[in-house]
Amino acid sequence: MERIGFRLQLRMELMDEYVEHHTKVWPEMLAALEKTGWHNYSIFLDRADGSLFLYFETPDLQAAQDGMAAEEVNERWQKFMGPYFLDLGDKHADEGFIALENVFYLK
Amino acid sequence: MERIGFRLQLRMELMDEYVEHHTKVWPEMLAALEKTGWHNYSIFLDRADGSLFLYFETPDLQAAQDGMAAEEVNERWQKFMGPYFLDLGDKHADEGFIALENVFYLK
Repeated sequence: MERIGFRLQLRMELMDEYVEHHTKVWPEMLAALEKTGWHNYSIFLDRADGSLFLYFETPDLQAAQDGMAAEEVNERWQKFMGPYFLDLGDKHADEGFIALENVFYLK
Repeated sequence: MERIGFRLQLRMELMDEYVEHHTKVWPEMLAALEKTGWHNYSIFLDRADGSLFLYFETPDLQAAQDGMAAEEVNERWQKFMGPYFLDLGDKHADEGFIALENVFYLK
């Protein structure tokens, strides 16, 4: 398994709404993540500045990203979530990100 | 298992050294982490600004922190690492942190 970490920046004024949506992620979206190899996926929020830190494990990052890019429900979810982020440009939150450098790992 | 995320801020000019030290963490330090319940522990670095995101899983965060606080090797490791961080004051990196809010989890 690769262990992947990446960052996103929430718009502070939309933080509560973002959290609320993540208490009820669409079941089809959860199923798509599972199917395409996004395992042990956690999202952490720092309310001090709206930073999000996303962590998941996958056998193959490229395959996980390509897999989600091909899921229709993901297209809808990312369009829905797009306005919550800063600095995404015309990208989706789950593509084109630069994985953080994994500098230490202990099983 | 609780899934814990927290942040630290590296001094940019010491980033390479920090990474280098984490390729050879002392075996006694690794053993202490394992013994006190710090599992699946990853540290991620964003080289753009020296942010560190730390992720681990533990049956009991309080016990994991108390356990490490009682390990002599941890005292030495944290003294060694202290100068690499910004804004720690007189705390150690592994104590007194505020865990990030876990807003989403998918097994």
